[in-house]
Parts: sequence; C-alpha cells; structure tokens
Amino acid sequence: MKSDICILGEPVEDFFVRMEEFHGYRSPGILVGSLMLEAALQRIGHVPYLNVVTETVVCLPDAVQLLTPCTYGNGFLQVLDWGKFALTAYDRDSLDGARAWLNHDLLTDYPLINSWFERTGYKREKPPFSELAEEILSTGPELIRCQEVKLLHPLKNRRPMPTGRCSKCGESYTLHHGSRCPACQGKSYYSLGANKELYA
Amino acid sequence: MKSDICILGEPVEDFFVRMEEFHGYRSPGILVGSLMLEAALQRIGHVPYLNVVTETVVCLPDAVQLLTPCTYGNGFLQVLDWGKFALTAYDRDSLDGARAWLNHDLLTDYPLINSWFERTGYKREKPPFSELAEEILSTGPELIRCQEVKLLHPLKNRRPMPTGRCSKCGESYTLHHGSRCPACQGKSYYSLGANKELYA
Repeated sequence: MKSDICILGEPVEDFFVRMEEFHGYRSPGILVGSLMLEAALQRIGHVPYLNVVTETVVCLPDAVQLLTPCTYGNGFLQVLDWGKFALTAYDRDSLDGARAWLNHDLLTDYPLINSWFERTGYKREKPPFSELAEEILSTGPELIRCQEVKLLHPLKNRRPMPTGRCSKCGESYTLHHGSRCPACQGKSYYSLGANKELYA
Repeated sequence: MKSDICILGEPVEDFFVRMEEFHGYRSPGILVGSLMLEAALQRIGHVPYLNVVTETVVCLPDAVQLLTPCTYGNGFLQVLDWGKFALTAYDRDSLDGARAWLNHDLLTDYPLINSWFERTGYKREKPPFSELAEEILSTGPELIRCQEVKLLHPLKNRRPMPTGRCSKCGESYTLHHGSRCPACQGKSYYSLGANKELYA
C-alpha cells in the first residue's frame, strides 16, 4: 500500500487500524464508504450542522461514525435499510447536501471490487483485504459518483417525543406507540429465561 | 468524581473522554447505559457471539459501540425505536441473554437523574454533567434492573439478501423491496439540487 494515501487527511494505514478496532476487521465496504464520504464532504464544504444519511445498514454507518462527528446514538447519522450503497452528507438546517454512490457501471472494470460487491467467487477465494484495498484506492475518483441534492424534509424529529409509563410493565416509552409499550403490545423479541430472578 | 470508579474495567474519567470524542459530549444517557451494559454482561458472562439490542435510538447505541465490539455497521448491534431505556446483551447463536433497564420506581429518590430522565426543570437549569454523573454513580446497583431472557427469534437475517440493479436508476438495491429501489418507488428523501452536474 502506498503510504502517502490519505482518507480525509488521515494516512490510510492509520485509518485501517481504527477501522479494525471499531468495526472488528478491515472492511472493503468501509473503505469505499470513506471515499464516498470524502466526495460528498468535499462537495458541500464546511456546513454548521453536518448530518449524514446512509442508504444501507451494512458497513457505511461505521464509515460515517469513524470519519465524522455523526453517530447513531447522537442522532446525526440516520440509516435507511434500502440495501443501496450510497450516502448523503447534508446540513440539517438548510437541508442542502451531496449524495455519493458507487458507480455501478464501472464495477466490471475492476475484478476484485466486482467480486466483493457482487459477492461472486467468494466460495473459491475471497480476495485478501490488502489486494482489494489496493484496487479500490487505485481506481481514482471515477469509482464514486456524487451529486448535489436538497432533502425533501428533515430525517429526524428534533423535538423530544412525549413519553410516559406503560400501563402494563411500568417502563417509560414514547407514547405515540399507543396505550402500552411495543413489548406489551405483543411485539416483544424476548421471553423470560428459566431463571426469572430480578437482579439489581 | 472518585477516581477509583471503573466502567467495565476502564477508569470512568477515561471513559468520559472517549465518550466525548465519539458522541460529541458527555452524556448522562451513555453513562446510565454503561451501567446497564455492565449489569447485562455480568449476567450472561462470556459468550462466543455477543450481540446487543437497544430499545431506543437515543444514546444507548453509542454506549454499546463504545464498550463492546458490537457496532451498527457490523450488524452486532440492533436498535429498536421504542423509546424504552433498556437493552439486551445476548449470544446470537444460543439466543440466551440478559435484559437491563432503568428502575423507574427509584427515579424520584434521585432529583438530578429524575430531572434529566423526565426532562423536567430543564428550562430553568440543566444539571451540570459532573453533578449528574456523581449522582448516577452514587446510586449503587439498584438504579438498574436486570433479568435473564431468551430471544424469541434472531433479530438479524444472517444470510445475504439478494440484490440487483434498479430498472430506473441503475443502482444496486435489495430486491425484496420490489421491482424498483425504494427511492424510485417515490420514497426518496431528496431531490436534485439546482446544480445537477455529476461529479466523479
């Protein structure tokens, strides 16, 4: 790997170490995502209230959390479960932004990226991250497409939602769900274990 | 702040610094979340395939991302938008876990925690983080309740979803959405900006 390559000003090898620490492994998706972020952030320039929305739950949210102040828990990162490898960086006040996405027309020119993205050839051999990363970083800017966009509406309700105690379990929840919390409405994902003891 | 307090083995002041770096500020919600995680992880002990699900989008996802290997982008953190201040740590193979939540019955005993959680009194004065943190850390274990649970079903589809190109925009998406991607079905969150140029 050429040591002079930087991602948003950070040497790429340092970024890989942080990626591995946070995400658990070196991820081609996060690397491509970082180039998408770079393109989108360059397009919008400095904005006072940066937010990012990703159009897939896979990898891209971690690229955003590694490279911007936007996290899932602080609400500045929003995630759509569309399975689209795209993201939009925008200002949450003006709603002006830039959307970046993978240039699908170019994939067939790059065998390793194509095999990773289309999940082909994985059974025989998965390309090592270092080779795939080299190909991703050698493509130049044409791998990513970017366009200015305007959000049609805010993606996040900025007012606190009214909360109250559930009449069944007694825990607090957001009241717009109804007169009981989702779990007590039968949407629970769990049942009590064999040991029903309550621990403090 | 007493310097000998640790959160999952890390001195609490070091944790506050990491929290501020990642989340943007020192967050009472993440601190309470860290105590919930500590309770749940202690209950389940070491498990081979740790996953965590939070029952709110606010703060708790960042507690999980700061203190466990589970992130939103690697899929080991799942998030339900129920507005419930609760989380479950579990093994994604056995589906055995422990759920931890805030003991609501205790809140009125703790004026600062109560004012933070119920969002009362904020207009007059917001308690400084240090005072609130001190109260949170002084409550002892009774602030958190924890119970063993069994997940009713996996919360995440572990097989890759079939993808294909959208017949309108040409971008790849998960095909279960229909014959066009969500954006091209009219669910788009953006329109093109005044400048429609395509950037590489």
